[in-house]
Amino acid sequence: MTVRVGVIGGGQLARMMIAPAVELGLDLRVLAEDEGMSAQLAATAVGDYRDLETVRAFVRDVDVVTFDHEHVPQEVLRALVADGVQVHPGPDALQFAQDKLVMRARLAELGIPQPDWAPVRDAEELQRFIDDHGGGAVVKTPRGGYDGKGVRVVHAGADAANWFDALTGDDALLAEELVSFRRELAQQVARRPGGQMVAYPVVETVQRDGVCAEVIAPAPGTGARLVEVAEQIGRAIAEGVGVTGMLAVELFETDDERILVNELAMRPHNSGHWSQDGAVTGQFEQHLRAVADLPLGGTEPRAPWTVMVNILGGPEDGALEDRFAQAMEEHPDAKVHTYGKTPRPGRKVGHVNVVGDDLDDAVYTARATVTQFL
Amino acid sequence: MTVRVGVIGGGQLARMMIAPAVELGLDLRVLAEDEGMSAQLAATAVGDYRDLETVRAFVRDVDVVTFDHEHVPQEVLRALVADGVQVHPGPDALQFAQDKLVMRARLAELGIPQPDWAPVRDAEELQRFIDDHGGGAVVKTPRGGYDGKGVRVVHAGADAANWFDALTGDDALLAEELVSFRRELAQQVARRPGGQMVAYPVVETVQRDGVCAEVIAPAPGTGARLVEVAEQIGRAIAEGVGVTGMLAVELFETDDERILVNELAMRPHNSGHWSQDGAVTGQFEQHLRAVADLPLGGTEPRAPWTVMVNILGGPEDGALEDRFAQAMEEHPDAKVHTYGKTPRPGRKVGHVNVVGDDLDDAVYTARATVTQFL
Repeated sequence: MTVRVGVIGGGQLARMMIAPAVELGLDLRVLAEDEGMSAQLAATAVGDYRDLETVRAFVRDVDVVTFDHEHVPQEVLRALVADGVQVHPGPDALQFAQDKLVMRARLAELGIPQPDWAPVRDAEELQRFIDDHGGGAVVKTPRGGYDGKGVRVVHAGADAANWFDALTGDDALLAEELVSFRRELAQQVARRPGGQMVAYPVVETVQRDGVCAEVIAPAPGTGARLVEVAEQIGRAIAEGVGVTGMLAVELFETDDERILVNELAMRPHNSGHWSQDGAVTGQFEQHLRAVADLPLGGTEPRAPWTVMVNILGGPEDGALEDRFAQAMEEHPDAKVHTYGKTPRPGRKVGHVNVVGDDLDDAVYTARATVTQFL
Repeated sequence: MTVRVGVIGGGQLARMMIAPAVELGLDLRVLAEDEGMSAQLAATAVGDYRDLETVRAFVRDVDVVTFDHEHVPQEVLRALVADGVQVHPGPDALQFAQDKLVMRARLAELGIPQPDWAPVRDAEELQRFIDDHGGGAVVKTPRGGYDGKGVRVVHAGADAANWFDALTGDDALLAEELVSFRRELAQQVARRPGGQMVAYPVVETVQRDGVCAEVIAPAPGTGARLVEVAEQIGRAIAEGVGVTGMLAVELFETDDERILVNELAMRPHNSGHWSQDGAVTGQFEQHLRAVADLPLGGTEPRAPWTVMVNILGGPEDGALEDRFAQAMEEHPDAKVHTYGKTPRPGRKVGHVNVVGDDLDDAVYTARATVTQFL
């Protein structure tokens, strides 16, 4: 019988699961937050993913549940599991992507290299952390941050005063050392419920204002040892936290040639969009294979280089389609992926992949294509 | 505004338009013949494509109409055009794919190389054609044939007696010389309403029992001159018949090194499935670009070789999904495309693409993957 995969959340990640679901013969069903979202075509329900009864009604007609985002509350996830629903990734894994303090503690247990960190409950604790780490730190709200939100570079305990004021009960912020890094990398791994894993080549990611702007796959100028270490870290985390589906591990490559874990995401991730056109198996297909417990696909690049550039913003007058046609006209070899969103400044409305033999050419073409949108 | 593309027919060709439509940001709507067809996800209407009012109601909410098959009657197509509907390909072009006698006459006008042919109205006329062509001929019903149906090899006028008996009015059958061919090839071209064209590399097709079984892209052992001639033929026909969208030209490569046109198809075609994984722009994306009047995409192969093998038949006990998982397990680099159909002997229920540097490896892997289904 056709496997019915339910996706909670109707954003672009759910949207980009539609294409491989059709080819794989999976019946994809989406619980969207609103009408008219990116994954509208597959939306079979609209409602609040924080409401257990809404989610329960949605999952009644699916065989396995997965996610467009990591914001479904633990109590909802655990109730589904108690109901006997297949949830991938499950709540035990997903907690490490939902709470950065829980994640840091688990990575420490697993012996995974990461920046120095500590929970801080007030400005004094933060000041002590700053004093111990060269006069600066990164402070993060453990929950709910994304795309640079909930992240602040500070040089004094008072710099996070308003966040401390908002803490309740035993809550704490996460303080991390300011890592001096050469560049950022990302390692993706897919894992099936039974434990089968495959790893993608490590990629270089370029962030602007805390948002992923570009990805180069594989990461240029990367020695075999670093590639191996990144893959080992990805596999160790996937296994150690018991993830099912895609795991993305954001990494710092430090000036002194260490690899430190920055963030985790347990879903298809912006750093993996290149694989849609640049790898034998795209990350959206791979995520579906993993959560539907199908054998995983090959992860080899299809060509020496793939460059992904996000389309951030765009014309606000509804002329996105015209820009799109213009971009296609100028760059027939660029693969444009649209999210069906109305542009706002800085909003991710799509991305472009360019696959080729020459890195400079691919970077040029991908950037030039995106420029047509702005 | 988002372009709404209406597809008449809900088979696998419409199904395979869904994935690129999502990524291109086109709103795909399908008029399916029945519930539960291959393109079910995008089906917004179910009804008879031969009924003008059914089709009129469907096209009311689309910007452009295209097709999963070539069977929509001319009178329906012409009524839509008279209503002001954008129809691609239009009836003037589509008639050449709908009626093989009309096609042969037009190719003759265009000076395109083709087998000797003649309309034959009775067994005597056919016998004369056979006598003039070495004692054999191929007889075709001009309309409604596909996958080897409506095609018969004959050695006497009486061999087509039942088809002559069924003719009415001025109707005729098509007689063609029995071409002695080395192999069969296919040339695809995409054409926009304004005339922009792109051509794919010519491919080799292998038919079994009149049905396309395998495709190798590009056609192996093909000299530059043959590649050029095939492309010229494809472009000349596309221009000469005014096709919009994808055109497939099925070709014979004769023992004496000529290229002769066998059949035309004005839609994505089985000979072009390789391009989904093996070319910069897959034929389903290209067809959508062309009919939505968007700039056409690159047609370069992504790798030296792509091999497509059809899945014909499969287990009738509903265990197709198990075979599918088994095929994925054994061949993680094979791309399996499913059509959401119940297997019957010889029925096309999917296909497999394998992309690689070595032709023998790709052929082996593609065939071995398909074997898992049978």
